[in-house]
Amino acid sequence: MHAVIMTGGSGTRFWPVSRSSTPKQFLDITGSGPMVVETCNRLSPLLKDEKMILILGQRHLKEAKSLFKGRAVHMLAEPVGKNTAPCIGLGAIYAEYLGCRGPVAFLPADHFIGNPASFIESLRAAGDLASSGGIVTIGIVPSRPETGYGYIKRGESLADAGKMNAYKVSEFKEKPDIEDVCNYIKSGEYYWNGGIFVATADTILMETKRLLPDLYEGLADLKKVLGTDRFEGRLREVYSDLSGVSFDYGIMERTDEEIYVIPCDCGWSDVGSWSSLYELRSADHDDKNNIAEGENLLIDCEHSFISSRAGRCVACLGLKNCLVVDTPEALLVADLDRSQDIRKIVEQLRKDGKERLL
Amino acid sequence: MHAVIMTGGSGTRFWPVSRSSTPKQFLDITGSGPMVVETCNRLSPLLKDEKMILILGQRHLKEAKSLFKGRAVHMLAEPVGKNTAPCIGLGAIYAEYLGCRGPVAFLPADHFIGNPASFIESLRAAGDLASSGGIVTIGIVPSRPETGYGYIKRGESLADAGKMNAYKVSEFKEKPDIEDVCNYIKSGEYYWNGGIFVATADTILMETKRLLPDLYEGLADLKKVLGTDRFEGRLREVYSDLSGVSFDYGIMERTDEEIYVIPCDCGWSDVGSWSSLYELRSADHDDKNNIAEGENLLIDCEHSFISSRAGRCVACLGLKNCLVVDTPEALLVADLDRSQDIRKIVEQLRKDGKERLL
Repeated sequence: MHAVIMTGGSGTRFWPVSRSSTPKQFLDITGSGPMVVETCNRLSPLLKDEKMILILGQRHLKEAKSLFKGRAVHMLAEPVGKNTAPCIGLGAIYAEYLGCRGPVAFLPADHFIGNPASFIESLRAAGDLASSGGIVTIGIVPSRPETGYGYIKRGESLADAGKMNAYKVSEFKEKPDIEDVCNYIKSGEYYWNGGIFVATADTILMETKRLLPDLYEGLADLKKVLGTDRFEGRLREVYSDLSGVSFDYGIMERTDEEIYVIPCDCGWSDVGSWSSLYELRSADHDDKNNIAEGENLLIDCEHSFISSRAGRCVACLGLKNCLVVDTPEALLVADLDRSQDIRKIVEQLRKDGKERLL
Repeated sequence: MHAVIMTGGSGTRFWPVSRSSTPKQFLDITGSGPMVVETCNRLSPLLKDEKMILILGQRHLKEAKSLFKGRAVHMLAEPVGKNTAPCIGLGAIYAEYLGCRGPVAFLPADHFIGNPASFIESLRAAGDLASSGGIVTIGIVPSRPETGYGYIKRGESLADAGKMNAYKVSEFKEKPDIEDVCNYIKSGEYYWNGGIFVATADTILMETKRLLPDLYEGLADLKKVLGTDRFEGRLREVYSDLSGVSFDYGIMERTDEEIYVIPCDCGWSDVGSWSSLYELRSADHDDKNNIAEGENLLIDCEHSFISSRAGRCVACLGLKNCLVVDTPEALLVADLDRSQDIRKIVEQLRKDGKERLL
């Protein structure tokens, strides 16, 4: 198996720690190292570094090279982000270029997995299934009625075909309302769509040819110059002509290939906000449910997340449900429950022309 | 009239802005300049710079000299703080040394006065009264039932003696309970004790001789060497032997001199905490009752006090009743109502050996 790790994106939800120069996937958000490194390390039981392909933004190439110094991980820099379909197509042609004829796992670089062994087991099963065609998604067993995610409804079981924990996908549901979500969870037939799937490069490219012919043409062009010094220039040309389209919309929703789901209960989180990180790191909570990192002094605080990352003393008094993130350039103080709205701060800073803080 | 401005004290209640190196009186807390400079400027209609005597701590002399560069204000540095009785005694002998035979106003350097004209009028009346003996306190007309202050109960009116707005003091009440305070305010016969009073140097020194003979002896010694280069060394010796005692306890409560009170409604505040400063600066409140100074960005915040003093962007989201004070060395985030407890932070930092933050 090969793996394509999608390392683009410029998440703003962890501002002021995540910045356009160092988005979330390059940060140690969960306390166990930069997320993209964690993502690769997690795959190690399944495949070697030389079978991993990072697709990332041009401006982050230097940072990534430094993080993976001495490792054989491949890196491909997109000159500009064009959503997931081009990124996945690029991963597919590069996997073929590396000689891959088997399954390829496609996964985001910035997710947390609490139980990596269980995740690897699911990926392995997905790889087995995908070897004989189709697209195999990993379905995250929901742990709460979350309306912010997409859901995958399972259909016919593959038990008769000897695949014990695998199903055909009956339907995708994008961000349903809370009532539907509660019904989904009660039924036990729905999973979160974490954007992780396995398919052969051939499957991906054939469906791209059929459904996104312009993209396919570009990829076919690029394939010819892969490994030559003409690749980079050609990539820039091809990308500048591409229209951004998501793999979900461009391929998944319209494919004639069979789509499968392998349920996986692996403590997954997309770590989408400071507040979800706060929940995730329950092991780091003190006896008043605070997380406090860096130089700090807490008096009568509870259920708060204090992150001192500027080497300064952060003194807190009488705080409840508060988020304090101190960095050298900017300080954030927020209601922890409002951490989804941090994008509003980033938007305002952009409007105010404060690019240096983004 | 001369004035002795008591500039000692190492207030911790405005931490992290007030530090042992720059206590409150040297800071621009209210937005109109360093408090000690404001205190002197406020007296200008009444007396010239050369009749003002600052008594301050040795370690703050340099800062004070820089603040009063080019001005004729006198400065006396105590080698160590020994409470108010020695400070006031020192002021008295220095005023005599300057040739003062009339009244001397004694006042703290770190108070705010909203209506300086009314304050000056009261001081002038107090000076007139004190010229013929006794100690004349300025009684601040209470604006709220505050239990944290001392109260002065007025007695017999001096109207018959031609002093329209002056009374004998009938009693001092130190930090009474809320029930008593409410009765005080209802009666209209009580005033806050702001620690401001007027008396001749002779009155002060005679009462010191009678009630604190050891202190008087030291002062008499010092008087002989005032203006010589032996003064500083002698001051150190005398101070090292002194026991610290407050003027209230040592003199006021035991004096046989008549004590008077001149009521004064001058928008006084001792600016004792961030929250009292927040109330005081109501003119700076925005439409959601926030005060925000320095580089900041507030989204959905109300009744909060955001002070960015480190040149960094302070972004706040969804805060209520919150205090954020950002300085280069330390950051404070607190419930605004808990600002009286900031001393707890300072105590803890001292215990933790973090002297650099004090």
